[in-house]
Amino acid sequence: MTVTASPLERAAQACRDQGVGALLIGPGADLFWLTGYSAPLLERLTLLVARADGRATLIVPTLEQLLAEASGAGDLVDIVHVGETTDPMPLVARALADVGTEQPLGIGDRLWSTFLLRLQRTLPEASWMTASTVLAPLRMRKSPDEIDALRRAGQAIDRVHAQVPGMLAPGRTEAEVGHDIFEAILAQGHQTVNCVIVGSGPNGASPHHHTSSRVLQRGDAVVIDIGGTLDGYCSDCTRDYVVGSPPTGYADAHAALEAAHAAACAAARPGVTAAAVDAAARDVLAQAGYADRFVHRTGHGIGLEEHEEPYIVAGNQLALEPGMTFSIEPGVYLPGQFGMRIEDIVVVNTEGAERLNTLDRAAVTV
Amino acid sequence: MTVTASPLERAAQACRDQGVGALLIGPGADLFWLTGYSAPLLERLTLLVARADGRATLIVPTLEQLLAEASGAGDLVDIVHVGETTDPMPLVARALADVGTEQPLGIGDRLWSTFLLRLQRTLPEASWMTASTVLAPLRMRKSPDEIDALRRAGQAIDRVHAQVPGMLAPGRTEAEVGHDIFEAILAQGHQTVNCVIVGSGPNGASPHHHTSSRVLQRGDAVVIDIGGTLDGYCSDCTRDYVVGSPPTGYADAHAALEAAHAAACAAARPGVTAAAVDAAARDVLAQAGYADRFVHRTGHGIGLEEHEEPYIVAGNQLALEPGMTFSIEPGVYLPGQFGMRIEDIVVVNTEGAERLNTLDRAAVTV
Repeated sequence: MTVTASPLERAAQACRDQGVGALLIGPGADLFWLTGYSAPLLERLTLLVARADGRATLIVPTLEQLLAEASGAGDLVDIVHVGETTDPMPLVARALADVGTEQPLGIGDRLWSTFLLRLQRTLPEASWMTASTVLAPLRMRKSPDEIDALRRAGQAIDRVHAQVPGMLAPGRTEAEVGHDIFEAILAQGHQTVNCVIVGSGPNGASPHHHTSSRVLQRGDAVVIDIGGTLDGYCSDCTRDYVVGSPPTGYADAHAALEAAHAAACAAARPGVTAAAVDAAARDVLAQAGYADRFVHRTGHGIGLEEHEEPYIVAGNQLALEPGMTFSIEPGVYLPGQFGMRIEDIVVVNTEGAERLNTLDRAAVTV
Repeated sequence: MTVTASPLERAAQACRDQGVGALLIGPGADLFWLTGYSAPLLERLTLLVARADGRATLIVPTLEQLLAEASGAGDLVDIVHVGETTDPMPLVARALADVGTEQPLGIGDRLWSTFLLRLQRTLPEASWMTASTVLAPLRMRKSPDEIDALRRAGQAIDRVHAQVPGMLAPGRTEAEVGHDIFEAILAQGHQTVNCVIVGSGPNGASPHHHTSSRVLQRGDAVVIDIGGTLDGYCSDCTRDYVVGSPPTGYADAHAALEAAHAAACAAARPGVTAAAVDAAARDVLAQAGYADRFVHRTGHGIGLEEHEEPYIVAGNQLALEPGMTFSIEPGVYLPGQFGMRIEDIVVVNTEGAERLNTLDRAAVTV
């Protein structure tokens, strides 16, 4: 293996190292990373069969043959197409000919179950594992180009946050603010919008709230968690805003949250485990009395996908390495009252971790 | 069963009728149809266990507990939540207690394979089938409210197509036109954009082309296939445009295509098979010499999802019934030259089929 080995070559090597016979990958980030093909996610089967011996076949619906060829994937894999009324399963079996059943097959984690059931019926002797076991260790160590792309995406979403104070005012609804943010995410260079959370007042205590018809009022705390995809790579950044004066208890909690975020950022460096980064944030919040109010892990990997490995969570003994990119996003949630979360994307470098979102952590009063 | 039975009650009855023990449904249209919960599609397990005996449990991540409760799903099912570091599989097994393994379990068609593999390890004696076998026959017969929603979505996308001539001009790129269409889809009332295909010149011959940097030129034929989601239901409509004078052979092919589209619309009525509607379009194009140029089925069902059952395809012997909604979208594709497609959504009524897109079928010259 040389440093210039392609993703397909690296995946084949990893299959050989791990005793996996082949990977079967549907539309999504794994397929794009391996072949450059951004396939439609639809009800017809698109499947890359990437064998441990390096041979690879991409099965596509006939009506997407030109699309697949235009991606350049044909330079890397054999593209075969299947007509509208033809069962693609025999083609899958043919692409796996002589792979045998002693070694498991790695199935794309996000391939729809309807396809896995058909594959299991086609290959009744096969055993199955998740393809991420092979691919995640490769994909989570980003190249310099990928880090540059994530930095550009981070700068773009920071520019959106810089505009948010002008969008927040008493009398506006979360949905109206969300619409403005949606437009700004695109205007700042993203091709798609992945996430717009505007959690005002008690809605902020629901971490995955989207937007609603709730009208902003003076005294509201507002959690704004936003992101998109720019040139293939994702942004994701959360900041807190207060309309007028903050509610009782908010300032103390936010001070603890800022300290927790800073502690986790400071903890992230090569050799430290993902679990230790989670603990760094969690310990600060626990000491401040918010142990039960931080109801989620500290972060998730990010790259071609908004959420990918490594997950920054208790129990994950993965040792961080340079090139790993993930969010650090502790939060404090008081049901019925308010919530708060600070989220930056960081990249592990040789000494520590660089924040790709560089906004101040303090809650912004508008 | 009364006509007022809820989707969950109808699904339980269908499970009993078909000998299915339970349905296991992840985020997506099935879950929304059954419970009203629009769940985030992320790496933590969200799973509805809906048993044939009518008992139903919705397992959600703790950080989405408030989100799930806010949906009102708690009035229909028991919501249980799972912390960030807890394995949810024992909860799935508990929700299935005493269901037994004599009857298969229906797994949501689009649930990610990573979850199905874990479920198969948790329940090694279970047998599995696709949940759509139970749910698709229920979901594809739309209620009057659903048909009204699809009509509103259809009218909205027709208003976008009415604006397209003003967006097309020599010198503009497909991507620029696509951006304008994206904005117009939202401006006309859709909450999300599902599809923007601007296939100019030879790109029109790739049915699932999106947009590109190709610059529009005089003499280009352009396929515009667009849709979004409005109040939960999808629009999807394709029309053809010509910049200046059409290329050689275009007018004849488009006349055949218009006839094929009209023939399929005329064929759609209760009791006719989906395959017969496909054949109606296909026969017209074959007689005009384009048999090999129509490389996809005639249509797909539409509702909460852009593509769902029934599929209008050779071999599908499903007899149409009032309330079924689907696209009729024959196309002609000449690789290297141009493509064309006409797509309307229709709803089967007691006598025939009503077009929910009412634009003229002719190619529009700009």
